[in-house]
Amino acid sequence: MNLKQLAKELNLSISSVSKALRDSHEISASTKKAVLAKATDLNYQVNPYASSLRKQKSKTIAVVVPEVANDFFGPVISGIESIAQEKGYHVLIYLTHEDMQKEVAIIKLLQNGRVDGIMISLSEQTTSTAHLEELKEMPLVFFDRVAEHIDAPKVTTDDKNSGFIATDHLIKNGCKRIAFLTLSQNLSISKKRMSGYLEALKKNRIERDNSLILNCTGDDRKNNNSIRKLLKRKNRPDGVFASVEKLAISTYEICEELKLKIPRDIKVICFSNSQTAAFLNPSLTTITQPAYEMGREAATILFKLVEKNRHHFLLENTMLNSKLIVRNSTRAKRTQK
Amino acid sequence: MNLKQLAKELNLSISSVSKALRDSHEISASTKKAVLAKATDLNYQVNPYASSLRKQKSKTIAVVVPEVANDFFGPVISGIESIAQEKGYHVLIYLTHEDMQKEVAIIKLLQNGRVDGIMISLSEQTTSTAHLEELKEMPLVFFDRVAEHIDAPKVTTDDKNSGFIATDHLIKNGCKRIAFLTLSQNLSISKKRMSGYLEALKKNRIERDNSLILNCTGDDRKNNNSIRKLLKRKNRPDGVFASVEKLAISTYEICEELKLKIPRDIKVICFSNSQTAAFLNPSLTTITQPAYEMGREAATILFKLVEKNRHHFLLENTMLNSKLIVRNSTRAKRTQK
Repeated sequence: MNLKQLAKELNLSISSVSKALRDSHEISASTKKAVLAKATDLNYQVNPYASSLRKQKSKTIAVVVPEVANDFFGPVISGIESIAQEKGYHVLIYLTHEDMQKEVAIIKLLQNGRVDGIMISLSEQTTSTAHLEELKEMPLVFFDRVAEHIDAPKVTTDDKNSGFIATDHLIKNGCKRIAFLTLSQNLSISKKRMSGYLEALKKNRIERDNSLILNCTGDDRKNNNSIRKLLKRKNRPDGVFASVEKLAISTYEICEELKLKIPRDIKVICFSNSQTAAFLNPSLTTITQPAYEMGREAATILFKLVEKNRHHFLLENTMLNSKLIVRNSTRAKRTQK
Repeated sequence: MNLKQLAKELNLSISSVSKALRDSHEISASTKKAVLAKATDLNYQVNPYASSLRKQKSKTIAVVVPEVANDFFGPVISGIESIAQEKGYHVLIYLTHEDMQKEVAIIKLLQNGRVDGIMISLSEQTTSTAHLEELKEMPLVFFDRVAEHIDAPKVTTDDKNSGFIATDHLIKNGCKRIAFLTLSQNLSISKKRMSGYLEALKKNRIERDNSLILNCTGDDRKNNNSIRKLLKRKNRPDGVFASVEKLAISTYEICEELKLKIPRDIKVICFSNSQTAAFLNPSLTTITQPAYEMGREAATILFKLVEKNRHHFLLENTMLNSKLIVRNSTRAKRTQK
């Protein structure tokens, strides 16, 4: 059922029906009533693209993330979607797979009015943010992995403080040589987590040892080789702080392979949102981010920008707190079963 | 930069510029060339909604799933998105949160031309599929949780056979009283997995005991109470087959609470796509579905329908194979460490 058919059914011109549906003052109340009744009757629905053109609003937002099959981004998207549903908005999902070129292509694609706003968490390979700086007229919100120097609202967790807490926890439980496994140093979160790690070392008068800092990548085999090499060293680390869960799981695998016992030989802590961390063998001590809440918060801010048509609305950045959840993988010697 | 501004820059009428951009025969080659050069120069992009209206194509598909923060739906969406990116399509995500009313509202919203096709995995509360039967002119593909009687392509895994294999595996490892924990019996996957469970009992001459079949819901506390009650029974089960991972994790929790040892006192197997199953304590035996491949397969079929403008293209249903991955949670007595 399109407008033309509806007009024919009503024996009116297309333009009259269209005006009636838009509640135009040129159309009488009785005609409007008749048009609406017939439209309801025939299940006529306004074409959303025609409606978008008219209103210059797409009622759609885009979420650009590295991946979705993930314990962190999954709940974030769920949080975003819950707010979008309340607001009657549609959510487009784009995955960069940690590839900067894909991220650039996606952002370019979104500049032509398909969406009313964008939420993004940067790919680990993103070294330049020119593609985002071009988005001058588009409401934009960063979450988790942010571009510090771009004037747009940012929703993050207290990464530096969490890095400090995680490292300090390992030291308190007896670790002296703590490895830090991180993703690309391009990422805001990597830098902040590492600065917390370094600060905790300093506070505890442990000297920084660059050979204990592993810059991992998206290549799992390469990462495993680096971790294996590290754990085979004569002076191997007695603690591992992984900035993402998959690097902790790799550490578990390699410890099993090398017959190293966690937590006796090596203690492990990582950032993780996995619900199964408690049932790993041994159970995994984690820093857990409020992922769902981050999604809700970021979406709430984006809709404020969209609804006010404000592009450069300099909101305060929002920082939510992560939580240290102590389990067996970092247990100190005297309390080990 | 809109069409009006572009026309002004070129000193041409809006309609001429528009025709030139559409490669109309009414416009001379030299004018077309000039228009294209200026459009590129000024970074003019065609409004996607105007373009959609003209072509009656939105270049957008919708994916309707119960949740995204999940080891199964996450990789499925990743698979769908990978195909959509190849095809230059946009992916809208809608979450039903297992709520039939939400599912109905979402489908209604999608009937007005916003998308060119829909992929859906039904909510566990979906008892009627009238809302999907109304989608007569819309390419539709079901995956995993399907509506059997609707003529649309379906991508599933061999749920019945997997249910049989899981149950038979428990029996071979010594179980005689096997509980089956399932989500709503409305779901196609629940029915098929259960029929495999029942067939394996029959083949092994074990009588069906309805008190061992728990119909769980979205309410985690309620589920935990039912599982607790079951495991506290005098004649408690010696094996648990959970049709979804979260019910296996609940079983782990309650076994810990009741000081029951897995696999000594109770063996546990479940459908799961979690990468951490190998590191659970004890490591969890799983039936693992090829989630990412399901997403790719379902999307490939949907695009065939979309590109051929076929609404009732009766393709064969596609069934992919799941895999039994044996780990410690089902280990037989004689081989237990």
